[in-house]
Amino acid sequence: MLFRQLYDSQSSTYTYLLADLELKQAILVDPVLEQVERDLKLLQELGLSLSYCLETHIHADHITGTGRLRELTGCLEIVPANAHADCANRQIQDEETLELGSIIIEAIATPGHTDSHMAYLVNGERVLTGDALLIRGCGRTDFQSGDAGTLYDSVTQKLFTLADTTLVYPGHDYRGHTVSTIGEEKSWNPRFVGRDRNDFIQFMQNLNLPYPKKMMEAVPANEQCGLKMSFAS
Amino acid sequence: MLFRQLYDSQSSTYTYLLADLELKQAILVDPVLEQVERDLKLLQELGLSLSYCLETHIHADHITGTGRLRELTGCLEIVPANAHADCANRQIQDEETLELGSIIIEAIATPGHTDSHMAYLVNGERVLTGDALLIRGCGRTDFQSGDAGTLYDSVTQKLFTLADTTLVYPGHDYRGHTVSTIGEEKSWNPRFVGRDRNDFIQFMQNLNLPYPKKMMEAVPANEQCGLKMSFAS
Repeated sequence: MLFRQLYDSQSSTYTYLLADLELKQAILVDPVLEQVERDLKLLQELGLSLSYCLETHIHADHITGTGRLRELTGCLEIVPANAHADCANRQIQDEETLELGSIIIEAIATPGHTDSHMAYLVNGERVLTGDALLIRGCGRTDFQSGDAGTLYDSVTQKLFTLADTTLVYPGHDYRGHTVSTIGEEKSWNPRFVGRDRNDFIQFMQNLNLPYPKKMMEAVPANEQCGLKMSFAS
Repeated sequence: MLFRQLYDSQSSTYTYLLADLELKQAILVDPVLEQVERDLKLLQELGLSLSYCLETHIHADHITGTGRLRELTGCLEIVPANAHADCANRQIQDEETLELGSIIIEAIATPGHTDSHMAYLVNGERVLTGDALLIRGCGRTDFQSGDAGTLYDSVTQKLFTLADTTLVYPGHDYRGHTVSTIGEEKSWNPRFVGRDRNDFIQFMQNLNLPYPKKMMEAVPANEQCGLKMSFAS
């Protein structure tokens, strides 16, 4: 399996390219609209065709590249069950698997940052955690039907029950980390270590973060797979 | 072996953490001064002591964290042979190896971006290419005794003779790529594909890039291991 981590510096977003090198077929997880050209070029250079674009959730901080990639490659667009994106080709349910040759992806429902969010466990060895679990952090819970208690349960009861050696590949990083492990996050993530559910809820309620700059544009666009700005219609 | 890629967004620099998990000893390659606190925290969380800081070359675009890390941890500071950094504990020669438990690093002299530059081949499977070879690019050759013909020879006669599957981890990336392979770069690096030595020299001579913003500060500082600004003395 080929595994590539790609970065969008404007939104600090990680996109992941997974490919079966025998089938020459690929999956992109959380592509970014502004990086579609880069990602297509890489696929072409590696001799890969794009089978699926997979979203961890409906993003608020960048516009997804998925709709544009579907237009250009004919890939299928997969979003988490109950995501507000009727444009998608398919929804993926909790515990459902997506297979592409040697790649087996298991969806793990991890709501809380948004009410519909999946982490994706790849071949049992690495988990793409979207915005549920970040390296030494976690996604915010104050919009898009986010809920701190729900996120606490997702992280502590779902992600933290994976093997300690599981590699953690997040949806964002703002400090230059690229990868961690479940064991490390259980020991060192300051959002969860030494905080029970109520402490966590209180902590998240007091973050008082400004809204993402692109939110008013990104959320409606992403509900239409990044293709059409609903506020402009 | 633990291998971590770390990123400094201001200078688009990659730092690499290598560690032998039995010895609990680590090496940092090309640390950045502004990230010393992050890197120390990560070492502490992983239960690692820092044995060596290793430079690929004297940088012009950021101040190294090596001197500060040596002050704080007592690590040894290793720079390429003939680097202008008398402050270092040790110079490493072409083809010399540095061993730390299960980690075997082979220095590969790859001058051209600067007149003293090493790539580091780690356990024969991944090469930290510094600024000699970037993903689909290469370092510039118009200052610090850089020489385009020398860089062409370093890349084509040294790095491109490694196995095609060797993973390429560069010193910088400006487009969000994190890793490549020697095979990919031989096929797709636009600086080298379809260009002979003379074409490459001409191409590099015509880049007309502005000097790095930090150069007047970084080069003299890095010649003193990042500790003292010589222009202020």
